[in-house]
Amino acid sequence: GTLTEKLKGDEPDFNRKAFDDLIIRKMFVVPSFEIHGGVKGLFDLGPPACGLKAAMIDLWRKHFVLTENMLEMECTCLTPEVVLKTSGHVDRFTDLMVKDPATGECFRADKLLEDAIDDLIEKNPTMPTEEKEDHLRTQRQADAFSPGELDTLLTKYGCKGPSGEAYSPSFPFNLMFKTSIGPEGTSVGFLRPETAQGLFVNFRRLLDANAGKMPFAAAQIGNGFRNEIAPRSGLLRVREFCMGEIEHFVDPNDKSHANFPTVADKVLVLFGRDDQLGSGKTKKISIGEAVKSGLVNNETLGYFMARTQLYMEKIGMNPECLRFRQHLATEMAHYAADCWDLEIKSSYGWVECVGHADRACYDLEVHSKATNTPMVATVKFDKPQEMEVAKLKFDRKALGMVFKKDARTVSAALEALAESWKDFEPIATALEASGKTTVDGFEITKEMVSWEKTMKKVHEAKFTPSVVEPSFGMGRILYSLLEHSFYQRDMDEQRNVMKFNPQVAPQKCAVLPISSNPECNAAVDEIAAELMQSDLATRVDKSTAALGRRYARSDEVGVPFAVTVDFETLTDGTVTIRERDSMVQVRVPKKEVCNVVFDIVHQRTTWEQVTKNYPVVQVDEGDGTPAE
Amino acid sequence: GTLTEKLKGDEPDFNRKAFDDLIIRKMFVVPSFEIHGGVKGLFDLGPPACGLKAAMIDLWRKHFVLTENMLEMECTCLTPEVVLKTSGHVDRFTDLMVKDPATGECFRADKLLEDAIDDLIEKNPTMPTEEKEDHLRTQRQADAFSPGELDTLLTKYGCKGPSGEAYSPSFPFNLMFKTSIGPEGTSVGFLRPETAQGLFVNFRRLLDANAGKMPFAAAQIGNGFRNEIAPRSGLLRVREFCMGEIEHFVDPNDKSHANFPTVADKVLVLFGRDDQLGSGKTKKISIGEAVKSGLVNNETLGYFMARTQLYMEKIGMNPECLRFRQHLATEMAHYAADCWDLEIKSSYGWVECVGHADRACYDLEVHSKATNTPMVATVKFDKPQEMEVAKLKFDRKALGMVFKKDARTVSAALEALAESWKDFEPIATALEASGKTTVDGFEITKEMVSWEKTMKKVHEAKFTPSVVEPSFGMGRILYSLLEHSFYQRDMDEQRNVMKFNPQVAPQKCAVLPISSNPECNAAVDEIAAELMQSDLATRVDKSTAALGRRYARSDEVGVPFAVTVDFETLTDGTVTIRERDSMVQVRVPKKEVCNVVFDIVHQRTTWEQVTKNYPVVQVDEGDGTPAE
Repeated sequence: GTLTEKLKGDEPDFNRKAFDDLIIRKMFVVPSFEIHGGVKGLFDLGPPACGLKAAMIDLWRKHFVLTENMLEMECTCLTPEVVLKTSGHVDRFTDLMVKDPATGECFRADKLLEDAIDDLIEKNPTMPTEEKEDHLRTQRQADAFSPGELDTLLTKYGCKGPSGEAYSPSFPFNLMFKTSIGPEGTSVGFLRPETAQGLFVNFRRLLDANAGKMPFAAAQIGNGFRNEIAPRSGLLRVREFCMGEIEHFVDPNDKSHANFPTVADKVLVLFGRDDQLGSGKTKKISIGEAVKSGLVNNETLGYFMARTQLYMEKIGMNPECLRFRQHLATEMAHYAADCWDLEIKSSYGWVECVGHADRACYDLEVHSKATNTPMVATVKFDKPQEMEVAKLKFDRKALGMVFKKDARTVSAALEALAESWKDFEPIATALEASGKTTVDGFEITKEMVSWEKTMKKVHEAKFTPSVVEPSFGMGRILYSLLEHSFYQRDMDEQRNVMKFNPQVAPQKCAVLPISSNPECNAAVDEIAAELMQSDLATRVDKSTAALGRRYARSDEVGVPFAVTVDFETLTDGTVTIRERDSMVQVRVPKKEVCNVVFDIVHQRTTWEQVTKNYPVVQVDEGDGTPAE
Repeated sequence: GTLTEKLKGDEPDFNRKAFDDLIIRKMFVVPSFEIHGGVKGLFDLGPPACGLKAAMIDLWRKHFVLTENMLEMECTCLTPEVVLKTSGHVDRFTDLMVKDPATGECFRADKLLEDAIDDLIEKNPTMPTEEKEDHLRTQRQADAFSPGELDTLLTKYGCKGPSGEAYSPSFPFNLMFKTSIGPEGTSVGFLRPETAQGLFVNFRRLLDANAGKMPFAAAQIGNGFRNEIAPRSGLLRVREFCMGEIEHFVDPNDKSHANFPTVADKVLVLFGRDDQLGSGKTKKISIGEAVKSGLVNNETLGYFMARTQLYMEKIGMNPECLRFRQHLATEMAHYAADCWDLEIKSSYGWVECVGHADRACYDLEVHSKATNTPMVATVKFDKPQEMEVAKLKFDRKALGMVFKKDARTVSAALEALAESWKDFEPIATALEASGKTTVDGFEITKEMVSWEKTMKKVHEAKFTPSVVEPSFGMGRILYSLLEHSFYQRDMDEQRNVMKFNPQVAPQKCAVLPISSNPECNAAVDEIAAELMQSDLATRVDKSTAALGRRYARSDEVGVPFAVTVDFETLTDGTVTIRERDSMVQVRVPKKEVCNVVFDIVHQRTTWEQVTKNYPVVQVDEGDGTPAE
């Protein structure tokens, strides 16, 4: 996004060094193929991040797909060229690139400009505000300039390659990974840059599967691939990433949403386009008001924005670090009706993590046209409506002589237009004025067809649905959640905590014996087995490290509860359960541990309630015991 | 597999036409990019198959990863060339291909031979048994012949291309999809053909994450890609597929498994290599006995075979259609200790769906060697052991003069060997005999090092772990489960049922009003909302079709339970719950519906128990009402 505020780790509470160290050391995320030298922009998820991601996706499926009976699909990553040619990706899915002519090294031109302006401002702290504003305005538009404009600006800001030479002129570089499908080597394919196309091309089958009923949504979770020119910002700009996309198909003339009332009062932080160009300030406003006032284009778009906010809160994202930024008119595709990005604030600044776009009828129309496949839905009227139509009469002979086997295609195209006088009128006008016109690439003349404008009673109408598309960058959300979850007790570098909530925590419970006494170990095994039986991922730590150190280790990977078997357990059968963030402990009969943890994880009770049902134990953990 | 028995749909009970029709019509699986003409070997999963797959993977994770605390990772599909060069895939991941010289069309040579032999036998029903056996023996080895042998056989069996010309000589075709990573276009990458390599290259971090403890397992679920020469057999041989792989790292000198006793009595159907070459008959035998008798190489391998069998039974696979086939000596990689494929019988015959391979130390050794990264684990002895070692003395000057900056590498390599006299002895012998020898590619001479054979007390030993690898083809398992779940009531083509068990069923419950009466609809909505709240995917069918037809529709997508709101509901608040396969109905207060379904899905009760707790209703559904 062009409006990303660069925080550059100057958030006072965020200790990047400690965070990065924890992330790698605990194997949340590691560079892919590290021992072979690695590859820029590729990362592997290790065990705790895998568990976190699985829980995030499970909740996504329940929050979106299950609750609204969306039709989930899983389409392939390999995509033949014709599909991405049709969607526009082959021609337009590009970033502007420059090369250092001496070394051949490649760079993303807009990022060079952004960095040059940052540098300039940093080096001139006394720069007059007006001049600074001027530079910043240029910076914000960095990804909207033409190649020529960018070249001029790179020269103006004195950008030079690592070799010291000026950069090559900028040129568009297609970000899709290309391959060849089949043994002949003649069939070009790409790795999909997004998951949406698989849903669009299946529209007809999806509509059938939904018994022809509109509106409806399809959804897909899967990987996308982009050959980023210069991957950076850790997990935020990578070459292979997980997306969750929803395509909600809706009548373009009625974008209301039946469930909108359930979210109308939800207050969101909106950064509308006028505010971006004007005050620079966001607004807190209910989505109901935002739609009513026209700030957000329609109910369906607004509904999904609110549902996304609710999802983010559910997985434990800090609501103070969420905002919706509207695309500027210059940023949006020409066909789009309105776009709002959910941006999440991390140490890298505000980063777009979920797009919400009303893409109008663009996608279905291009695939329909390229394949000659009608991609329309039907709306049935409560009572028949009178409609102006054209009644056509063809001169079949004239048509046949000119178009041969295509004559049928031409007449069908005209019949389709004739279903509404509004659509046919331009053809009629042209034929009357000049005696000829073009329909679907065929030149027709006045001799071939005559018409009559008339009224017709119709019981239904066909239309190409509009698409409202919420598109989730799961990897970016995962990374942001890692940052939002990280803190240090008393700002102590040795006492890192990940405060995952029990729903998303990769492991739900740790079980620890206070001593290596065989009876203690047996009780630990028994409790762990029972937790596992209930599908609660459990971590057993029988190491001889001090208890405080073992608590600290489980805090680091965000385990919400730790159960300790001590000598009391052997006499009265009770154990302690410690809650990670408060470090409060309760004493619970060991037979009840599994139910307590299960009920909290499944939101049937709360920790607060548990502290009322069981005796709280006084424990001083303030010994600053480090994890390792 | 070469031993695939071709059933060619001649299973008496399997109606392929009805099955295929259902699969497409209900959008379980559809050809990818259909409206654009499709691509061979690429298929999309539609809503019911997506739900089924998500449930299968969830159970897989719980059955394998969670229960045994495996370390799950998610590595990238994009893989740089160096990694797959090291693993051997760049050089050896090939199938033999021939071309029709006139048309350029490509074919898999072994499959042409197999088909030619099938044809020959089919056309000669009176062929003497001995001659037939001879042809079949050739057929079974089809994928083991050299290019020259295959060419001779294709000529012998008169194989000709579609153009009528003889095929080109056969040549190896690499099955990996190639692409280029990064903007420079100079860095070759491939789409991974399996997920295992990502785990191998991360071995050191994984061992650390497991606190250095052995044995342990890593696991990964994700997509693999193979550019099949001639994809066929529907979903069984495709170009993009989901795999679940486990790499269990174990001491090569101790392949026992702590949990083996828990499965030792499990009886499996084994098709050992001797039986394949001899009787042609399988054996039913407990895995405990199979390991004890040496038929299965070791406990760890046997443990996973039994666990796989249990998983298959859990997801609802027909146990009669499962067998484990051992690889013939000629089939196995030279380094492998033993391999058993779980084969599942479908209408395409016996198809390998899960490999279980003891790959010895091959994978870690090649990556270690290629990257100069030690990939070893440590075993600590209970009491120190006396060990024969070599005590080395280097002439640092002599080493330095010859090897310069590599001197340290050479001395380290020698020190590593010296840790065990057994490993160092060949070096000593060679240096004594000829005064020089080669270590890790460096030629060393007698002047550089002297040694002494001595005894040393050691407390631990380092070793390269062996890998036992269960590798699941999730797509093949999914397809087999679809076939195993399909049946027709009374062999009636109109009454198709998918008998998914409640754990894997994509939708758990249907809710239907007997009339479009608003009170009925309100009750339906209330029940459906409560089910959804409990994360039970629910299908509401308010259409005006007859009740029997609506039941049939939900049977077709395998919904195990259907709740019907009728006029009694409005007076006494009870509804009926119908079980799909028995068609038995019980009458239950509507407030209890959610708990009943939840408890069955989570295996806290059974349908049988439910029929005892609630009154059974007599209903005659035998009207053969078709679904559509």
